[in-house]
Amino acid sequence: MSEVVNKATLAKETVGSLVKLTTDQKNEALLVMAAALQHEAAAIIAANAEDLERGRQNGTPESMLDRLALDELRIAGIAEGLRQIAVLPDPVGDTLETFERPNGLSVEKIRVPLGVIGIIYEARPNVTVDAAGLCLKTGNAVVLRGGSSALSSNRKIVEVLHKALATTALPPNALQLIEDPSRASVDEMLKLNGLLDVIIPRGGSSLIQNVVMNATVPVIETGAGICHTYLDADADPEMALNISLNAKAQRPSVCNSMETLIVNRDYAQVHLPALAEAFREANVELRGCPETVALVPWALPATEQDYATEYNDYILNIKIVGDLDEAMGHIERYGTKHSECIVSETTDHVARFLQEVDAAAVYHNASTRFTDGFEFGFGAEIGISTQKLHARGPMGLPALTSTKYKVYGNGQIRG
Amino acid sequence: MSEVVNKATLAKETVGSLVKLTTDQKNEALLVMAAALQHEAAAIIAANAEDLERGRQNGTPESMLDRLALDELRIAGIAEGLRQIAVLPDPVGDTLETFERPNGLSVEKIRVPLGVIGIIYEARPNVTVDAAGLCLKTGNAVVLRGGSSALSSNRKIVEVLHKALATTALPPNALQLIEDPSRASVDEMLKLNGLLDVIIPRGGSSLIQNVVMNATVPVIETGAGICHTYLDADADPEMALNISLNAKAQRPSVCNSMETLIVNRDYAQVHLPALAEAFREANVELRGCPETVALVPWALPATEQDYATEYNDYILNIKIVGDLDEAMGHIERYGTKHSECIVSETTDHVARFLQEVDAAAVYHNASTRFTDGFEFGFGAEIGISTQKLHARGPMGLPALTSTKYKVYGNGQIRG
Repeated sequence: MSEVVNKATLAKETVGSLVKLTTDQKNEALLVMAAALQHEAAAIIAANAEDLERGRQNGTPESMLDRLALDELRIAGIAEGLRQIAVLPDPVGDTLETFERPNGLSVEKIRVPLGVIGIIYEARPNVTVDAAGLCLKTGNAVVLRGGSSALSSNRKIVEVLHKALATTALPPNALQLIEDPSRASVDEMLKLNGLLDVIIPRGGSSLIQNVVMNATVPVIETGAGICHTYLDADADPEMALNISLNAKAQRPSVCNSMETLIVNRDYAQVHLPALAEAFREANVELRGCPETVALVPWALPATEQDYATEYNDYILNIKIVGDLDEAMGHIERYGTKHSECIVSETTDHVARFLQEVDAAAVYHNASTRFTDGFEFGFGAEIGISTQKLHARGPMGLPALTSTKYKVYGNGQIRG
Repeated sequence: MSEVVNKATLAKETVGSLVKLTTDQKNEALLVMAAALQHEAAAIIAANAEDLERGRQNGTPESMLDRLALDELRIAGIAEGLRQIAVLPDPVGDTLETFERPNGLSVEKIRVPLGVIGIIYEARPNVTVDAAGLCLKTGNAVVLRGGSSALSSNRKIVEVLHKALATTALPPNALQLIEDPSRASVDEMLKLNGLLDVIIPRGGSSLIQNVVMNATVPVIETGAGICHTYLDADADPEMALNISLNAKAQRPSVCNSMETLIVNRDYAQVHLPALAEAFREANVELRGCPETVALVPWALPATEQDYATEYNDYILNIKIVGDLDEAMGHIERYGTKHSECIVSETTDHVARFLQEVDAAAVYHNASTRFTDGFEFGFGAEIGISTQKLHARGPMGLPALTSTKYKVYGNGQIRG
């Protein structure tokens, strides 16, 4: 039996006991996990040092190594994340609907765990703890497959968590880490129907596309964001500037940051030069349509490919359009249905944009950077779904649950 | 461009206008479709006769031909189905949640169409109309790929519906029928990410498994049901008999019918012979564990494979167990998480069974045959989901929708 099948089987065997745990028992386990991580911080930092050393030898860029590095403070932060999950309401067991049928059948729709969740992710070891915490809080078993660059850290973290869980009501086998660093272990997980109920990929677009295109297990697609902001003819200039700058430059590396600014022609004539200047001061490279380049001579010409690129960097496309329909047409063509914004004071333009633009989150007069589980007040985030099935947009704890109908009768049969 | 890509593209092009339709416009279109089917009944029956003739030449069994056959009465029934969909509440546009954030952002979560739905199904032409009606009612475009045995009927039906839709606000291209009868057209649909948002297979288990194992487009798995009924030691004998008989024999061909009856040992000693006699009178063949065969000598011995088989026929396995845990263990091992029932008067056995058995619907003292969109009062059913993502159990109109967050600000940016 391969490592993947073996560990997924062990995880699945805990599903029956996980569903019987009380919220208090699960929260207690999360707190014990948090304490253990801090108690064993030295050992985790030592294991992490092995990953960093291997990374350096492999020529990993310092910015990547920084994301990978753990110290006492970061471990304390990771532990704090578990404590925050512990205080969140437990969605499992919630009654979503009750109804009685004319034949006397009484039906209850309640939230239940999904079962066994596979998470396939890249470098950062904080995801190991965060994903484990969210899955266990919702009564799910979890099979983690992290990146090979964090393998020593992840192995030590899971060892610490296993020891901690052994002192709680939560079965340690509910948490599994696949250690095989080869691509084969990912491929195997993707086809593990019957053992995994869902796979959630977290990482760059090539990782996500590999999962989406090859999994036979149901997938929740997360991630890719080519987000737009449209400045309407009557946009408030200060708001337009602040929102555009925030959406692009506050943190360009994330999926809810803006990649293309769409500007109404009349607005551009008056305001684009000042806007462009602000982006230049923020070290943002501009690539524009021919009209943009005419107004902002230092902007590079944008190519078709540029409009379809998620830069995740200090680069912005600018496209000038004649009206709302042309703006929405551009979004329909190049957007990834993640987050889209209109800055406007025209009520029916706002209504049309929010109604007709097809995206997980559509904004009026606010930065697309708010598409986030914490910013939405969910208290947690397992990812941002860019698909339409099951969950769309920021996913909090309820996205990690399914439902079940309990039907109470007194002898009803079908006629 | 292949037929599949061409028609899926035409369907996708209507998504923008579908989302703008009012409920009244959609209902009006459904009523016009219904009238057109009855008005053109003669032409549809003539096309259906071609399918029947081809079926006869190919040696299709009469029972299959009967399911395929259309007459005025059946067409009236199909039209009536559309009229019933028209009067159902429209879930699109429903506000599911609203909340305000401390920074003043106001967030609304609303129901939106899924987009383009692919339906892959087998023989019966009524599914063509029913699936089209449910998808269009929820503002979705739909690409239908029916079985080749009903191709002439389906082609004529869609031709009639297209003509009808041309007189309404609903764009005819929102409804597409793939006419290529080859397996290649199915394979192509399964990989149509970007054009199809979801695929729902409806049919036998080999059709469903082919879709689940080969689709890269998200799938809602429907169908397979190995359902159990457990008779506890103190089950009411009359209820136990009625429920068991109904679950098996009222309509054995459907997924919510029972395949295995699990009987408590003490109960079996007293009541199994009479139960078995009732099944014999209903022409149900019994296959039992050794203890069953000892009590019912004419029962055949059940094999391991029998317990794992969805007969959809007048055949029933009987398994005698010592207690509730053994019963639930059997269900865990052989069940398909569809519908499971306990007949019992012991409160904590009932509570444990309904809590711990992992299935879309769990019953106390009622036949599993009630797992059905109409029986649950949904007024419609696109299928019964046996997966845990997105929808579980009978799927009504809301299962054909996604959600979207509308976020209203007044200049908020992230700090």
